[in-house]
Amino acid sequence: MKVTLSALDTHESSFTPLVVIELAQDVKEETKEWLKSRIITKKKDGDDNDDFLTMAEQQFIIKHELENLRARDEKMIPGYPQAKLYPGKSLLRRLLTSGIVIQVFPLHDNEALKKLEDTWYTRFTIKYQPIDSIRGYFGETIALYFGFLEYFTFALIPMAVIGLPYYLFVWEDYDKYVIFASFNLIWSTVILEVWKRGCASMTYRWGTLVMKRQFEEPRPGYHGVLGINSVTGREEPLYPSYKRQLRIYLVSLPFVCLCLYFSLFVMMIYFDMENWALGLHENSGSEWTSILLYVPSIIYAIVIEIMNRLYRYAAEFLTSWENHRLESAYQNHLILKVLVFNFLNCFASLFYIAFVLRDMKLLRQSLATLLITSQILNQIVESLLPYWLQKKHHVQVKKKVQALKADIDATLYEQVVLEKEMGTYLGTFDDYLELFLQFGYVSLFSCVYPLAAAFAVLNNLTEVNSDALKMCRVFKRPFSEPSANIGVWQLAFETMSVISVVTNCALIGMSPQVNALFPDSKADLILIVVAVEHALLALKFILAFAIPDKPRHIQMKLARLEFESLEALKQQQMKLVAENLKEEWREGGKEKTP
Amino acid sequence: MKVTLSALDTHESSFTPLVVIELAQDVKEETKEWLKSRIITKKKDGDDNDDFLTMAEQQFIIKHELENLRARDEKMIPGYPQAKLYPGKSLLRRLLTSGIVIQVFPLHDNEALKKLEDTWYTRFTIKYQPIDSIRGYFGETIALYFGFLEYFTFALIPMAVIGLPYYLFVWEDYDKYVIFASFNLIWSTVILEVWKRGCASMTYRWGTLVMKRQFEEPRPGYHGVLGINSVTGREEPLYPSYKRQLRIYLVSLPFVCLCLYFSLFVMMIYFDMENWALGLHENSGSEWTSILLYVPSIIYAIVIEIMNRLYRYAAEFLTSWENHRLESAYQNHLILKVLVFNFLNCFASLFYIAFVLRDMKLLRQSLATLLITSQILNQIVESLLPYWLQKKHHVQVKKKVQALKADIDATLYEQVVLEKEMGTYLGTFDDYLELFLQFGYVSLFSCVYPLAAAFAVLNNLTEVNSDALKMCRVFKRPFSEPSANIGVWQLAFETMSVISVVTNCALIGMSPQVNALFPDSKADLILIVVAVEHALLALKFILAFAIPDKPRHIQMKLARLEFESLEALKQQQMKLVAENLKEEWREGGKEKTP
Repeated sequence: MKVTLSALDTHESSFTPLVVIELAQDVKEETKEWLKSRIITKKKDGDDNDDFLTMAEQQFIIKHELENLRARDEKMIPGYPQAKLYPGKSLLRRLLTSGIVIQVFPLHDNEALKKLEDTWYTRFTIKYQPIDSIRGYFGETIALYFGFLEYFTFALIPMAVIGLPYYLFVWEDYDKYVIFASFNLIWSTVILEVWKRGCASMTYRWGTLVMKRQFEEPRPGYHGVLGINSVTGREEPLYPSYKRQLRIYLVSLPFVCLCLYFSLFVMMIYFDMENWALGLHENSGSEWTSILLYVPSIIYAIVIEIMNRLYRYAAEFLTSWENHRLESAYQNHLILKVLVFNFLNCFASLFYIAFVLRDMKLLRQSLATLLITSQILNQIVESLLPYWLQKKHHVQVKKKVQALKADIDATLYEQVVLEKEMGTYLGTFDDYLELFLQFGYVSLFSCVYPLAAAFAVLNNLTEVNSDALKMCRVFKRPFSEPSANIGVWQLAFETMSVISVVTNCALIGMSPQVNALFPDSKADLILIVVAVEHALLALKFILAFAIPDKPRHIQMKLARLEFESLEALKQQQMKLVAENLKEEWREGGKEKTP
Repeated sequence: MKVTLSALDTHESSFTPLVVIELAQDVKEETKEWLKSRIITKKKDGDDNDDFLTMAEQQFIIKHELENLRARDEKMIPGYPQAKLYPGKSLLRRLLTSGIVIQVFPLHDNEALKKLEDTWYTRFTIKYQPIDSIRGYFGETIALYFGFLEYFTFALIPMAVIGLPYYLFVWEDYDKYVIFASFNLIWSTVILEVWKRGCASMTYRWGTLVMKRQFEEPRPGYHGVLGINSVTGREEPLYPSYKRQLRIYLVSLPFVCLCLYFSLFVMMIYFDMENWALGLHENSGSEWTSILLYVPSIIYAIVIEIMNRLYRYAAEFLTSWENHRLESAYQNHLILKVLVFNFLNCFASLFYIAFVLRDMKLLRQSLATLLITSQILNQIVESLLPYWLQKKHHVQVKKKVQALKADIDATLYEQVVLEKEMGTYLGTFDDYLELFLQFGYVSLFSCVYPLAAAFAVLNNLTEVNSDALKMCRVFKRPFSEPSANIGVWQLAFETMSVISVVTNCALIGMSPQVNALFPDSKADLILIVVAVEHALLALKFILAFAIPDKPRHIQMKLARLEFESLEALKQQQMKLVAENLKEEWREGGKEKTP
């Protein structure tokens, strides 16, 4: 194993490595020299006031600069005639696709990481997370996720507390369930609105609330026939929109429908298994078979998790194949595909039990099994298993490095070798998705299983720690990414809370206690339930409209900012006019002198 | 009657009068001189490139400048020691409140007006309106109203055409009504979304689509204790927010509720009258009493109109008394108050007939009478009556002016005297409100009375002309006002179309034909209706989400604009850096020379 640590900045006294570019083993010397020279030229153009920036921000800037290294007059990558280039083409992308550069990743700052871990998760006490430090180390997007996770957990506590006595005292009165469901519905609207305000306060503090949207360049994977972009006037690949539409409607849409159908098919198998287990239990009646009753649900929960993960890959492949020009369009199409499938996959069986079988006992049992199994699975697959593998690998690397006795800085070398083998964190998508499905389990059938919120709170208290462990020790450090809010997830959570109004009203209307109140006329009962449902939905929309998205003090500060920038603009224009006048006067003076 | 036309610009050769400031008859000479000097100073500071601007834009700028004439070191208005001033206080507002200035209004441009009228409404042929010319003459806000009126009328035509055979062939099959209602619901969603796109195209052409929001100054009527505004750091009146909240919740809200209650009380009187007329008709059975059946509805329609107009004044007074700091907050509170009352006042009786009395024949009759009466009333009260009064007055003024034989320009003098007596156009609020209520009549009960759309189309074809007449001949020319869209009315129309989904589904579910299909189980029927309603609502939201708000070519142009402005910013910064370097080099050179 040949080791080269070509530190570009070795001539400088204090050298902190920030970002690693891993090259393939057999890259030609010529190519290395060219790449080095291009990076250095770029660097000289830039500013040098890095002292004001956090390490994460410096790494973000380096990433941005590397991605914007573009071909000028090069026709191909030096040393690799088959790797063609054209003016404006991103060099890094070409280097990555032709396998010359294997990966680019930012390095951990071990000292800062240790400090962060100490205040974050290593001591198992219940406390607020150090969101600002997380933001300093990982950037705004990840800090917002942890902020949301914490907020959401706190917001669930009242629901969990109110839900507990229903379990403890086996309350079955319909009026109590109605109260619980109504509380839940209002509460879920309020917490989502209040989150927006909290989020605005946080991102205002971080300076990303009024983020000026950058002009969006085409996403790296975008390909097509070279042509002139009518917006920028630059040469770039063009891909006709109708072709993309054809791919979406003729391939992606049928595929998604097929997957949905398959998911329903698996669900029917689960119900067959359930019936079989029930038959077995009734025939034998032994204790052993009563445990067997839970087995189909547990198997089904595991199958759901596997299907979700497989579908996720398929959705990513399809959305990438649809060849969207902008990263935002890609993300929107991916999220839509994944959300629809996951929603159906996770909740179809519960809907079927609730509204077709109308078996509330089975619903409660199935809901509990699904929720708890998926939570346990997630924590194991996401964090603990990779952490354990990681640790084993760590020991091996340490031994190897010690055996090497290299003359270069062994700690740095060890760190780079270790971190380059770590998995890549693929963004907050899966983490939010997990919370989204949890929110569904808690709110959709809350009036049947008030205990769900308590389980969710318990899960999230450990989830904070396992996610933190994942970020700090399992994955490569991700590049930080600024963001102003949780984006499309706000809409997803709000949609879920609208659907839960409908399901809860229907469940309450179906309960035998409520039905007993209207022995003669079922029609009257349904009308009343529908009226209440409409009133609740109207109330939700009015609440969402009436609660301002930004707290008053943030509004005031934004207004002050706007006012000051307008004033500054005015003064700048005044100065310009004054200077022009001075210039004119001077010119006039010169003309007179000779 | 003393006549003075003090034209500030008499020393210039070509003088086009733009804006008139009407002073009270007994204003002191000293005050006039001071006001004149202040206006002239302001004018000298400004640019003089008025050639690029339309007359409406010039008038808008003059209005803006006049409103921004602020007190500097004056402690009071010269000649009026009781009219106190403090630094930053708007002079015009003070002059208006102390009765020194009676009004400020822009003058009509008779030549341009004649041209506009010729292409707009004087020839009674069906054609597109000259929206761009309207915009040039009256500004964007009014042009958008006429654009929306025209678009809405065209959009109603398919509904009117499909609705006609129901009347002609007396179709009563439930399935046909279902088809009509479903078409209506989808259609109303689509037209509202498509309007957004059309509106974006239009305002892009006018350059107001991406209007940079100006920093909002306090509205003229705002008062309070003098203090320092924490946003601007300027001295201005402050009014504590809790006091405003108290006024809203302790006075305005109870008052609105009282008005709503009174409106329902009047409705019950109407039903008593209706019963009385029905009784009379059944007793006598003559033809004379069959006409009498329509009288209660007509009287009720007139009473509704009167109540709406009275309530409008009360709402304006109350909202003004709530003392909102910003014009936008004032407008939102006013619109909310007026919309809630008008909705209940106009539609409560129809809801009562439809869902409590369940008398579809009466509903159809009542709907037709309310719709037609209110439309006829509106056209008379709004345009024709004022136009007739206006014309009479015009003749009198002409005679007077001719008798005067003044030495000054008689035409201009006549024009000013005529226009200052004209009514003031109070904005597009009432015009949109009328369309909003019409949309309610057409869509809320469309499956019961398919003919409503046809009446609406007929009304709007004449409404275009009577509104045009109103703008050109009845009211003073309004100051033009830029705007990017129809604002809160988009939301109001969308809300109405959501409510109409609910009412139409309920009406179809109640129809005897549908009920005959489910002779045994009313509960099943209701469940199916509710399911269909939910599906339609979901479809509406998905449609609203899926149809982009801006057409693709506008999106492209906006992207191009953004790209270019970012590129320009980059270049500007580069230039700045280069200049700094040059400066440094020069400084260095100087140091070396001596």
